[in-house]
Amino acid sequence: MRKTQQLMAMLKSTSLDFIMEAHNGLSAKIVEETGFKGIWASGLSISASLGVRDNNEASWTQVLDVLEFMSDATSIPILLDGDTGYGNFNNARRLVKKLEQRGIAGVCIEDKLFPKTNSFINASAQPLADIHEFCGKIRAMKDMQTDDDFAVVARVEAFITGWGLEEALRRAEAYRQAGADAILMHSKRADTLEIEAFMQEWGGRSPVVIVPTKYYTTPTVKFQELGVNLVIWANHNLRASIDAMKKISGQIMREHSLAHVEGVVTPLEEVFRLQGADELEMAEKKYLPAVEPGADDRL
Amino acid sequence: MRKTQQLMAMLKSTSLDFIMEAHNGLSAKIVEETGFKGIWASGLSISASLGVRDNNEASWTQVLDVLEFMSDATSIPILLDGDTGYGNFNNARRLVKKLEQRGIAGVCIEDKLFPKTNSFINASAQPLADIHEFCGKIRAMKDMQTDDDFAVVARVEAFITGWGLEEALRRAEAYRQAGADAILMHSKRADTLEIEAFMQEWGGRSPVVIVPTKYYTTPTVKFQELGVNLVIWANHNLRASIDAMKKISGQIMREHSLAHVEGVVTPLEEVFRLQGADELEMAEKKYLPAVEPGADDRL
Amino acid sequence: MRKTQQLMAMLKSTSLDFIMEAHNGLSAKIVEETGFKGIWASGLSISASLGVRDNNEASWTQVLDVLEFMSDATSIPILLDGDTGYGNFNNARRLVKKLEQRGIAGVCIEDKLFPKTNSFINASAQPLADIHEFCGKIRAMKDMQTDDDFAVVARVEAFITGWGLEEALRRAEAYRQAGADAILMHSKRADTLEIEAFMQEWGGRSPVVIVPTKYYTTPTVKFQELGVNLVIWANHNLRASIDAMKKISGQIMREHSLAHVEGVVTPLEEVFRLQGADELEMAEKKYLPAVEPGADDRL
Amino acid sequence: MRKTQQLMAMLKSTSLDFIMEAHNGLSAKIVEETGFKGIWASGLSISASLGVRDNNEASWTQVLDVLEFMSDATSIPILLDGDTGYGNFNNARRLVKKLEQRGIAGVCIEDKLFPKTNSFINASAQPLADIHEFCGKIRAMKDMQTDDDFAVVARVEAFITGWGLEEALRRAEAYRQAGADAILMHSKRADTLEIEAFMQEWGGRSPVVIVPTKYYTTPTVKFQELGVNLVIWANHNLRASIDAMKKISGQIMREHSLAHVEGVVTPLEEVFRLQGADELEMAEKKYLPAVEPGADDRL
Repeated sequence: MRKTQQLMAMLKSTSLDFIMEAHNGLSAKIVEETGFKGIWASGLSISASLGVRDNNEASWTQVLDVLEFMSDATSIPILLDGDTGYGNFNNARRLVKKLEQRGIAGVCIEDKLFPKTNSFINASAQPLADIHEFCGKIRAMKDMQTDDDFAVVARVEAFITGWGLEEALRRAEAYRQAGADAILMHSKRADTLEIEAFMQEWGGRSPVVIVPTKYYTTPTVKFQELGVNLVIWANHNLRASIDAMKKISGQIMREHSLAHVEGVVTPLEEVFRLQGADELEMAEKKYLPAVEPGADDRL
Repeated sequence: MRKTQQLMAMLKSTSLDFIMEAHNGLSAKIVEETGFKGIWASGLSISASLGVRDNNEASWTQVLDVLEFMSDATSIPILLDGDTGYGNFNNARRLVKKLEQRGIAGVCIEDKLFPKTNSFINASAQPLADIHEFCGKIRAMKDMQTDDDFAVVARVEAFITGWGLEEALRRAEAYRQAGADAILMHSKRADTLEIEAFMQEWGGRSPVVIVPTKYYTTPTVKFQELGVNLVIWANHNLRASIDAMKKISGQIMREHSLAHVEGVVTPLEEVFRLQGADELEMAEKKYLPAVEPGADDRL
Repeated sequence: MRKTQQLMAMLKSTSLDFIMEAHNGLSAKIVEETGFKGIWASGLSISASLGVRDNNEASWTQVLDVLEFMSDATSIPILLDGDTGYGNFNNARRLVKKLEQRGIAGVCIEDKLFPKTNSFINASAQPLADIHEFCGKIRAMKDMQTDDDFAVVARVEAFITGWGLEEALRRAEAYRQAGADAILMHSKRADTLEIEAFMQEWGGRSPVVIVPTKYYTTPTVKFQELGVNLVIWANHNLRASIDAMKKISGQIMREHSLAHVEGVVTPLEEVFRLQGADELEMAEKKYLPAVEPGADDRL
Repeated sequence: MRKTQQLMAMLKSTSLDFIMEAHNGLSAKIVEETGFKGIWASGLSISASLGVRDNNEASWTQVLDVLEFMSDATSIPILLDGDTGYGNFNNARRLVKKLEQRGIAGVCIEDKLFPKTNSFINASAQPLADIHEFCGKIRAMKDMQTDDDFAVVARVEAFITGWGLEEALRRAEAYRQAGADAILMHSKRADTLEIEAFMQEWGGRSPVVIVPTKYYTTPTVKFQELGVNLVIWANHNLRASIDAMKKISGQIMREHSLAHVEGVVTPLEEVFRLQGADELEMAEKKYLPAVEPGADDRL
């Protein structure tokens, strides 16, 4: 199955699936080797790892460069956290073209304004996109894609910005009718009240994706009962790596030595394995002359 | 002090200094916040984090893009692991120009052939660069720099490729005379016999940098006694992050839940702090109109 | 004088100056060799040469890559046609930082919405930016620059979008008070009625820049009389090259031969000269070993 | 037919075909509109237009970025002048993967050393690649491609570097056996003696490509008689544009006016047409809300 088919299958299947955050080629490969069926290319994680803010400080082509490394390093589908599509319908449909070229399986866009602001900072102050403008964006993206299975997921920020169920439903339905393959209903509550309310009213009109970063205590079985199709573990590889790098940097700073570090961190050989050093070694045997070419041979 | 002055001071001071590996803007910021006085932009770590091999699979401008994010995110000097300079003297001097534009304090080039191969894989099979060609490269780089304090460090791979002390000294001296600001003497032995032998013969003709990745058990005081000027902790942030991401991904995969993860990983608020979210919030108050234009009418 | 000082001097001098469009390193070099004192990095020309539309289809970092080649190839100041600043105040101030790193002398931003649309297509349908929002953007850019002479030029699109003199003056004054170093008053009329009206009311409160693409028949002395400081020849190198490439491609297509082409086009030697082949030849003599290093020497 | 199939058909057909140089999206589109069946992405032209030398001063990913714009702007096949493959077999096969992602139909690599030098500068001083090393590179590239019709053309520099017919034939045959889809036999003579000699001995073992930049006076029918399959018009769009930009810049510099320029250069409307402004205008009608949200309230 093509990567796009794999992602579309996950969205459409009634069984609950999970995709895990990655932010570069290395973390993407780790997510695949761990056994996940898909990768969430988090805008927050990618911007944070680059060292900038999650406010479109990195250009959309700089994000694209990160995605290309992630896609080349893995064989499972990648769903991009595409912010607002980085502009209007024209920027968003151009994005779709570029994502398809790089083997990205789908993109999630949110109904906010460019430049985007993170949903967990100052959210209530953030205006939402005009519904008609956002629906036009979805239609433009769906019209652009050449692979029928490329997924456009519409993220509803109504709850995040303090609007209620009615607005959330109104937008979800409008986006569905515009052609969105799935709805990502976002909530920053510590419980699932908003999500529950939506799922009951929604009644499975189209696949639903959730991001339980804030209501992480909710047992996963609950999501299954609600009929959620896909859960995104949104930023935990990044957050685990920050914790680990702070600790190891701190230890080496204090001890001025690697003596007690070498055994703790991943062996160098494992780094080489993750990079695929073996394949290159075999390839060198296959494609390089037995002896390093000498000047005489070199004419 | 400019970043270049800070690095040059570390190289020239007789007291032992330490710089720590980083591979993106985030890890670079963590290295600075931990208290290190400088950053080692490791070719191995950067390539591994991108998801490619340490064999110039990423182009030199792709590495430059990573460096720009690292430099923008920090105020301490960055020393680039510049492989062979990515080509001949002309590529190497062009690199110097680009590094200066991006606020990188110095670059270390090694006397091997392009495309480079990692010193810990198959090293004995690797030919070294022609001494005269490599000295010309150093001279071209020094002639190109506009900031007198930009540092060009010459890495000697003689020990790594199985050559002895004589060749190591012959090359170190040639590189010093060509204008190298410091010599990085590399060794893959588990002890410091090679480094000791070199330091005794070298007699402080110019600053010496070492990378004790393989002889990590050696007490740091030993390096001080030998007269080493700078120690590079070369790849441990990367290796710590791999270990952490494998564990957290594995746990989330098994538990299908974040319940026992949230407390373990870095809080989201700390991610925002590292990104500098506060500065933007203040800036929005300072530069944005009291009310987002047309916000109300956008729903 | 630094490039920034050169541009600022042109803006502030009462004598009329001229800058010429370029869209890549080659055309920039030709503009300098022709004798112009500055370069207009046209958004229209750069996007057209890339093969995309002037609607932010190329990302701002892709434009930055073009600018870097242009700046490296020349020693005269470059004024960037920076559209709307590629987003809000935060994107615009980030742009300033990146432009300074690459030796760009100034940027002109226009009071429209992102993504920008060309002023000569459908202009009357285009809404203008909120004045307060645009002024905040200017303040943020001026606060970001580290070189006091970096120029921020505010382009007023009031006439272009069908608003009258009053709105044009209101905006120009607001932008001036916000810190803009100069006002670019744009007009698409075939005559200079709008420009005249503005200049009379403006009374030299700050430097004024114009783009006479549409009122090209106006004698230049007229601009001098009106007190204009800088004239931009906005896109004529691009348009000349299109005409030339169409003709030569057509001729070669018809004749299936270069026989009558070789004498007409620029000699290959001139291409090499423009690229600076001589400097490299000298550098090779200076930095390369007399003989191509042989295997023996290469260990 | 896919672009790769179109190029392969041109190579394999016994009738003489022609491809024309382009160096950015704009010139590529002009080449297609002129009626050519293919595009030569010239390394010389691309580097010159960027403002750098044809010595791998632009990184291979910077060239790739240019190619992506060229490919997106056109529907005819592009053959890349891929220098030496930008490194060893591993760099060259990685290039193939990236070219396929961007819809490039084929690549031509030459048997010289990285960094490359232009064949018309100092050529006799340039060493050739080791035959076995170069054949391994060809095999690696052919093994990497996923589209069977992607073309790898092997450029023989034996004549250029002063070697005779025997060496040219030895290399051509070795490259053919290694899997090269065609041989580009290069010559810098003002006549076709070398090409004739080769063609007679070669006897159509595989398709042959030539670049008659230096023997441009030779009637094209001659190439047909010799059995050449494809002729490359290698750099004439670039050279025509240089001539045109010098002239128009000079005229505007002298006349300080556009009065006599406007009629000479391509009209602005044609620039917009080449960019595809019409499609966007239609798309805006299709995808944007009737009224730009909040436009009225924005003044």
